[in-house]
Amino acid sequence: MAPRFTLAIEELQALLGDRLQTAAGVRQHHAQDESFHAPAEPDAVAFVRSTSEVSEVVRICRRHHMPVVPFGTGTAMEGGVNATQGGLSVDMSLMNKILSVSAQDMDCTVQAGVTRKQLNDHLRDQGIFFPIDPGADASLGGMAATRASGTNAVRYGTMREAVLGLTVVMADGRIVKTASRARKSAAGYDLTRLFVGSEGTLGVICEITLRLHPVPEAISAAVCAFDSLEGAVNSVIETIQMGVPMARIELLDSVAIDAVNRFSNTDYPALPHLFLEFHGTHAWVEEQAETVAALATENGGRNFQWTANTEERSALWQARHDLAYAARAMRDNAKIFSTDVCVPISRLAECILATADDIKTMPIPMPIVGHVGDGNFHVVPALDTSNAAEVAAVEAFHHRLIERALQMGGTCTGEHGIGQGKKDYLEAELPAGVEVMKQIKQALDPESLMNPGKVITL
Amino acid sequence: MAPRFTLAIEELQALLGDRLQTAAGVRQHHAQDESFHAPAEPDAVAFVRSTSEVSEVVRICRRHHMPVVPFGTGTAMEGGVNATQGGLSVDMSLMNKILSVSAQDMDCTVQAGVTRKQLNDHLRDQGIFFPIDPGADASLGGMAATRASGTNAVRYGTMREAVLGLTVVMADGRIVKTASRARKSAAGYDLTRLFVGSEGTLGVICEITLRLHPVPEAISAAVCAFDSLEGAVNSVIETIQMGVPMARIELLDSVAIDAVNRFSNTDYPALPHLFLEFHGTHAWVEEQAETVAALATENGGRNFQWTANTEERSALWQARHDLAYAARAMRDNAKIFSTDVCVPISRLAECILATADDIKTMPIPMPIVGHVGDGNFHVVPALDTSNAAEVAAVEAFHHRLIERALQMGGTCTGEHGIGQGKKDYLEAELPAGVEVMKQIKQALDPESLMNPGKVITL
Repeated sequence: MAPRFTLAIEELQALLGDRLQTAAGVRQHHAQDESFHAPAEPDAVAFVRSTSEVSEVVRICRRHHMPVVPFGTGTAMEGGVNATQGGLSVDMSLMNKILSVSAQDMDCTVQAGVTRKQLNDHLRDQGIFFPIDPGADASLGGMAATRASGTNAVRYGTMREAVLGLTVVMADGRIVKTASRARKSAAGYDLTRLFVGSEGTLGVICEITLRLHPVPEAISAAVCAFDSLEGAVNSVIETIQMGVPMARIELLDSVAIDAVNRFSNTDYPALPHLFLEFHGTHAWVEEQAETVAALATENGGRNFQWTANTEERSALWQARHDLAYAARAMRDNAKIFSTDVCVPISRLAECILATADDIKTMPIPMPIVGHVGDGNFHVVPALDTSNAAEVAAVEAFHHRLIERALQMGGTCTGEHGIGQGKKDYLEAELPAGVEVMKQIKQALDPESLMNPGKVITL
Repeated sequence: MAPRFTLAIEELQALLGDRLQTAAGVRQHHAQDESFHAPAEPDAVAFVRSTSEVSEVVRICRRHHMPVVPFGTGTAMEGGVNATQGGLSVDMSLMNKILSVSAQDMDCTVQAGVTRKQLNDHLRDQGIFFPIDPGADASLGGMAATRASGTNAVRYGTMREAVLGLTVVMADGRIVKTASRARKSAAGYDLTRLFVGSEGTLGVICEITLRLHPVPEAISAAVCAFDSLEGAVNSVIETIQMGVPMARIELLDSVAIDAVNRFSNTDYPALPHLFLEFHGTHAWVEEQAETVAALATENGGRNFQWTANTEERSALWQARHDLAYAARAMRDNAKIFSTDVCVPISRLAECILATADDIKTMPIPMPIVGHVGDGNFHVVPALDTSNAAEVAAVEAFHHRLIERALQMGGTCTGEHGIGQGKKDYLEAELPAGVEVMKQIKQALDPESLMNPGKVITL
């Protein structure tokens, strides 16, 4: 392929020096996330250091009609960072400063390259924490861009609720602050929420003000095995309806448990499990755990075991967070094809059980894991992408799963985003809505240079 | 004034029959909300019955370049329903059907004219409730349009968090569903949040899917008087930082208490007060109340009194909700000029105390009340709008208050919206953001027919 965007790259090099890279290895590293989507290399990679630098970079790209693809940690699941139309990958990893923390206000402002674990390490001694936890140690910019969530969302919400305000560089290089630091505001259109989940297609998220939470006085975790998936799911539904403010309530089916046991050297029985966590005062955590233990027992739960031991608890959640890697390790050279539907909780048991039946027809093992308190679950097959029949079978399964979820009033993606792979499903889910999204995209990025080809097709 | 939009009105009459009104009394009734802003009559009023009818109405208006101004209950505070450019007031009061309730999913879908009390009456026996409670019995469409909140927001969030999805009629008559019924979604741009708070300027909100909450096992309320405003505010800050999940924590200064005593026949001592509410299990509510009582006592609180009696509790909150009417009743023929700043909670004491000092220079009594757990408070003078000097003094005070809040990282409006009166302040708060809002407005309503002149000036 002949070099492209050579004039833009010259200008970018003049601005950034050796922080503008075109070496093959660097471009390859920025060609893909952790999904099965085909890698697509950018023409160059910019390692930016500040919001004003991002603004200058975007202005140069716009003058030369060069696509701009923001890159955080490359740990997403829908191919959002793959440079499908080439252009410039804007690597945010050097923008890793925690700009301010206010323990009194329980908020902080960070550059987009700060990762969730980096932030929590920084907060460790201040009595506050940041709850949102996708499996990977993702960057907070990437998490905002994909409207990420994780295991704590049932209690603390997703990035939609966590982000108080953003500083964004628009397609024309303008720097826009989307909100004040107030907790609550009715000041005009909710630009913050417009950019959260826009996956880099409306602008580059450079700084993020985040809502933090007080570290609870007491935290305890619990594990409970169930004879049936149905019993586990019904326990979740009843718990939520009782108003127990679960901090975490995660489902793993027996295939997922098998993957976890192998990858994390655990020895859970080969049955569906709930992993749970309770946050509060000592007395209140105990009361919550007793309520849920009773509900679980009524639904066929066995050996409801809870622990306030920090190490045991950390090991439990590390095993859960490593699930995608555990699933991938089930086979050699496999890539994860993660599904991500979310349905109203009244339909959750039905949706999971129909999906479990469907999985029985599939040629490969497919673990089910879920943030079931939200109605969100993933089927996580480890795919041999060189096997066309297998890929076709999994894609057909995925299609059936999404149709099932949409018919139940659900969504094709609870937390991973649309990226490259779900644009048609987004149109099926919100046909009139997509037309409005296109109008917004055209108004804010008329040349379609910001992560082009993702989320919507103009 | 010569009749305008006569052709449009003829077409609307053909569609709606006597549900299209041009009588002076009806137009006057639709000329204003509860604010001090000058009334502005529409040319006609349409009493619509369905989303598809709204779509037809909007199409007719567009063909004839007739402004469209949605009207709920007319109880807002920033003149959003006043037809400042004439046109058609679209009265939603006949769209008052509760379309579905799912106790299992804890959600419901309503037409936009359903009011918050109507909804809660309907839910009364189902173990679930809708928490958002502005002072008036507002329509849920109007509440969504203004991103309303109220006394419960500190625990349950605002309309931003409460709305799961909307059905909106766009400026060209298209009917758009903004989201699925899933609790959590990463499916494209967050259209729901874009319309929540758009104050009718991007489209007419016709149907709303709302998140509901389980009625807590136990509810108790408390009242506590303080020697100083500072002690009351510091109690609030410490309570929030302790992570006590207050359901309500409201501040009333001594002037507000005086207004309440007169209007609601209560006999609170003439001191700053906190009104509080706790939700949870019996044991947990007691634990919360003890924690807060201890914090209040340390900060000069006297006679922390709590009650689980439903009637006493209802009387307490009715008195609080009637505060705007109580303030207005302090003078004859007065109109409420409500301020609405919200600041980071670390600056709340400073902001309220500086504002209390400022009030001492004012010619009229000005109560302070606040949803202080969110950092949001109102100064609520009863204004004699025929007295130009008084109006000028209050406007100058308002200007100083907003400058103070913005300097502290706050917002000019926590929950009332921008409407007519705060457009300049919105530009001061988010100068680059307003430009993005204008781009969105132009893309979605190129002729600026949807509630023109509100929120932003094109």
